[in-house]
This record gives sequence, C-alpha cells and structure tokens, in this order.
Amino acid sequence: MSNPEFRLNPVTGEWVIIAPQRSLRPEEYSRAGRRRRPPPPLLKSCPFCPGNEHLTPPPVWEAPRPRGEKGWQIRAFPNKYPALTPQPRPQGEPQGPLFLSAGAWGLHEVLVETPIHNRFPASRDAAEMALLVRAYRERFLAVRSQGWARYLVIFKNQGADAGTSIEHPHSQIMATPLVPETVRRRGALARRHLRRTGRCLHCQIAEEEMRDGARIVYRNKSFVVFHPFAAAHPAETWIVPLEHRSSFAHISEAEERRLAEALGRTLRQLCHAFSDPDFNYVIHSAPLAEEGVPFHHWHLQLIPRLTRAAGFELASGVFINVAPPEETAERMRQAPA
Amino acid sequence: MSNPEFRLNPVTGEWVIIAPQRSLRPEEYSRAGRRRRPPPPLLKSCPFCPGNEHLTPPPVWEAPRPRGEKGWQIRAFPNKYPALTPQPRPQGEPQGPLFLSAGAWGLHEVLVETPIHNRFPASRDAAEMALLVRAYRERFLAVRSQGWARYLVIFKNQGADAGTSIEHPHSQIMATPLVPETVRRRGALARRHLRRTGRCLHCQIAEEEMRDGARIVYRNKSFVVFHPFAAAHPAETWIVPLEHRSSFAHISEAEERRLAEALGRTLRQLCHAFSDPDFNYVIHSAPLAEEGVPFHHWHLQLIPRLTRAAGFELASGVFINVAPPEETAERMRQAPA
Repeated sequence: MSNPEFRLNPVTGEWVIIAPQRSLRPEEYSRAGRRRRPPPPLLKSCPFCPGNEHLTPPPVWEAPRPRGEKGWQIRAFPNKYPALTPQPRPQGEPQGPLFLSAGAWGLHEVLVETPIHNRFPASRDAAEMALLVRAYRERFLAVRSQGWARYLVIFKNQGADAGTSIEHPHSQIMATPLVPETVRRRGALARRHLRRTGRCLHCQIAEEEMRDGARIVYRNKSFVVFHPFAAAHPAETWIVPLEHRSSFAHISEAEERRLAEALGRTLRQLCHAFSDPDFNYVIHSAPLAEEGVPFHHWHLQLIPRLTRAAGFELASGVFINVAPPEETAERMRQAPA
Repeated sequence: MSNPEFRLNPVTGEWVIIAPQRSLRPEEYSRAGRRRRPPPPLLKSCPFCPGNEHLTPPPVWEAPRPRGEKGWQIRAFPNKYPALTPQPRPQGEPQGPLFLSAGAWGLHEVLVETPIHNRFPASRDAAEMALLVRAYRERFLAVRSQGWARYLVIFKNQGADAGTSIEHPHSQIMATPLVPETVRRRGALARRHLRRTGRCLHCQIAEEEMRDGARIVYRNKSFVVFHPFAAAHPAETWIVPLEHRSSFAHISEAEERRLAEALGRTLRQLCHAFSDPDFNYVIHSAPLAEEGVPFHHWHLQLIPRLTRAAGFELASGVFINVAPPEETAERMRQAPA
C-alpha cells in the first residue's frame, strides 16, 4: 500500500491511520543506534543480580536451579517501590464533587526472569522460556486465589524507551480491586460483538487473520502470531490462543509449552528484524469476575517502541502507524527465529 | 501525600494512580541530561529555516514581518509527508467482516512558528506568543470554513521524546472527516455530567480547582492554569478559559492576548521548573458539528514528556503518575515566569 488508510480496531472501537512513509526505511524503524555497550552477565550494582537478594523484599515465589545447584532461576517478590500498596486503605474524604480519590491498594510484584543480567529474551533457550511462562502462570494463579482482586495483569517492560529503569530482565504483576474503565470498555465491545454475531471477537479476528495470511508471522498447534490489521504501532504483535479461553488462568500444559515457543520465536525475530528494539508486552485476560463469560479471550500483545505517540494521538486517541502490518509481518517472517 | 492514591479523571472516566516515589527527586523528573548542544539560530540543512522555503510546499498562510521587512514570521503549509491525504478517496473493498478500512483523507498542515531555528517557546516575547495564537485562530477558522471537516485539532510536539524529528519550532493542524471514538466518548461523559448536574463539566472542574487552590499555577482575567487533580502525567498542565465556550473558534480578541500570556508563562515556568523537558500540547475543541452544544468547553492540555507510559498503562489505560500535581504545581509557581 502507498496511500494512508483509516483502519478500524474492532477491539478498542478506535480508528488508526496506517500512513506508510516512503522516507522511512526499515533501518530507521530502529532507535537502537543509541544503544549502550553490552552489559555484563553479572553487575555488582544491580539489585536483581545474584548476591544482592538482600536489596529486594523476600521472595514470594522462586524457581530453584535444577539438580541440586544452589540459587534460583526465577524469583518473584513485592515491588520495593509499589504503585499499589498491599493493605486495603480507607477511602479518603472526597475533596469536592469532582475530586474523587481512594487509597491505591492492590498488588505489585516483580518477577526477575533470570539470574543472568544480560540474558535478554532473544538469547534464551526453550527451557528458559518455558520456565518463564510457567512462572507467569504460577503467579497468576496464586494472586487470583487470594480472592480480592478484580483485575490482574502480567507485563514486561524492556529498555528505557519502554519505561523501565532497571536493565536486568524482569516482568511485573499488578492486581487491582477495581476493573479499569478501558478494560471494561473493551469487554463491552466484545460482548456486543458476541450478541450481534454469535461469535467471540478474538476467535473471529484470529480466523480472519489466518484466512487473509498477509499479516501472519507464525503459527503452531495452539497459537497464532500476527501483526493485526489495525495495528496502532509499527510491528505491534499479537499472540492469540487458537482455543477459546477467557482467562490466562485456564492455559493448559501443552499451551504453556507452545506459548513459550511462540513468544521466544517472536522475540528473536523482533530483535533481528528491527535491531533489538525496546518493547512492552502485556497479557490481556478476562477480569477475574468475568472468567466464565464467553466474550473474553486472553492474548498477549507486544508493542515495540519504535516510534512515539505525539500530539495527535494524545488529542484524538487515533494512532498514526507509519509501518503497514503487512510489511512488518513479512519482515518478521524473514528474520531468523 | 505519601501513599499512592487512585484518582478519578472525570473527563475520561478512567482512574489514575498518583504514586509519589520518594526516590525520585525533582532533578530526576528531567530527561534533559541527554540534551544536545544548543542549536544555531539558522541551520542550512533545516527545511523550515528561511532560505529553504522551496523544500516545503507553498504556504497557505503567512504572517509577514512588520514595517516592510522582507520575509515571514509564521508560515503554514501542507505537510509534505501527510498522515492524511488532501483528496477524498473512495472506500476500499472491505477485506473481511472485521477488517474495515477507508482512504485516510483530511488535512495535515505544518505551522512554522518562527524563522529563527533556536527560538524555542520559552525564549519568546509577548508579541511572538500573541502572533502564534493569532495564527492558530486563523488556521482553525480557515479549515473550519471549508465545511467538510468533523474534527480539527491543533497541536505541538517539541523534542524527540515528544515524537518530532524536526527541531525547528513548529505546530501542526490536522482535520478529519470523522470524529474519533475517544473524542466522542469524552463528549458523552461531558453530556452526561450536564444532564445530571446542570453544569458544564469543564466550568465546574476549573471552579473546583480554583476553590481548592493547591494545583493552581496561574490565573489571569480569562484563563486559569492548573495541574489537574487526576493528572495522568507529571506536570500535566491545563489552560482553561474561564468563560464557557465550546470551540476554540469562538475565542475573543482579549482572550487571544491572555491565552498568549498564559501559554508563554506556562512554557517558561515549565522550562525552568523541569529543566526544559520535551512536551506536547493540544487544543481540545468541540467537534465541528457540535459547536452549539453546551457541554463542550475548549481548553489546552500540555503534557511534558518526563516519564514513559509502560506495560501497565498499555494494558489497563490506568496511568501511574509519580509526581502529585500539588507538588508539581507548587514547583511551577516558584519558577521564574
């Protein structure tokens, strides 16, 4: 394509503008030129490196090393500087009819993905990725079983452009006693789609993407990986389970392995195709009280930080994506996995 | 405050988390450490500098220099690489029930704010700011009078962190033949507020902010400048007209001068208080077909790019703001204006 296109994102109800810039060559997608020198495998000053465990709160979960070796492979603990405090707090006095506030409580955990400081996802083997997905599931189930949370999200920020200050590979888990408005709205759109068509919106998106094919990056027995038709960001990638499941809590063991495979491949291809960009990924899952409804469908959304949202996006909610997903998917397919 | 708080943003319906980080000192708000050496007043390679007018499309509007001097003071022209093409284009074939697209047409203009390459807003005098606001009004009215646009937004991106690649001070104007979903939703919330309370939401927000006082940065006869109670970003600033007007098109001449004063002060204080951060600002105004309704209220929103949205924000729409607006407003008030 050469002319800009409006495309409707059926998940958010918002249009995006796909505006390919002829002036932007693939190399220019990347902001990696600013990249640091490669970090060492062990960094004395890093609070997430082995030997510095005393700098972080005691773990709530650990994956020990195999065969009697000392130490841990993955380690989860409460965030030392949480955005949500662990204790429920009384609602404050309203400070005016429009100034509503409440103590921000909930859960905010850090999950250190590896003891090795420079073991970034693109360099990990299958066993490491499988253990990471296992850890996600373990923590998801453990927090969910506490019973108080309404919304639970697992996410990863990699690199300064993606909003993290700590380089050592880590993910985060946050849970809130309320369902965010944005999540509620996505649910309402999916509910409406089900009512109108009898179909799960995400099942149908995945099907249509597979039928079209142009934006598919990879597929295994349980997952399809694609750059969605109305991608808001260059190389935005979705990993969607082929079997309809509302919640990440319901992932099967076979799916766990295949998610690890799909995610590992995706991160390696992203690294090769777009010069190791910073990125975020998030696992969208049904609000915990709605795991039984048929219109949610959990999936992983990956957003490389190749460009910046600017004034138009802030004002309108309409994102301008300078890289058509058909082209970025092709680029990913050609990259070594 | 010291504990994190949920605060409800009445304009978006979304909660934000105000999570002051004790570890974050005011100096650390700033990303200015990475700052470039100061640019020259005239840059031969800059397409927006005088002498290079042939590198951009012919102007649609110019503010000439005073008293017979040659050249221009402000210059507006179509964006050479527009995200929206000027000609209406036929809707394409639907590519599937969920893959809806349309030619992205509309208007995308650039407004070069000054012939001087390094004349950033914080260093401008009152006359320059007044001329800029005049130019905004002129272009707003001119595009509006073409009759086809449903949504029109003026915005400015300053600096690479704010999504611009061209350093020379410029603003942009975009207009679309559709009203973005996000804008529609904000309108629906404001309409509901009016129906429930009989009040314009923005009039009431401004009143409550003035009564409370803690987040007020500045006030003149026509505008109040404040860091809103539920600010999603550190030092997010709103400039709101005290007189209820739905559209920026209705700004009076006296208001024009006072907006220029308020905006000039705000940008100087921002520069001093937060070490010259990159920023975006946008002028929110009623969708053009709704200028007559009583629930819209135009205003300017300024977002310094001091932190990054990360995984949690992408997943939930809930922003984590590490700087309470009470503190950032105090810091702005103390900064030289």
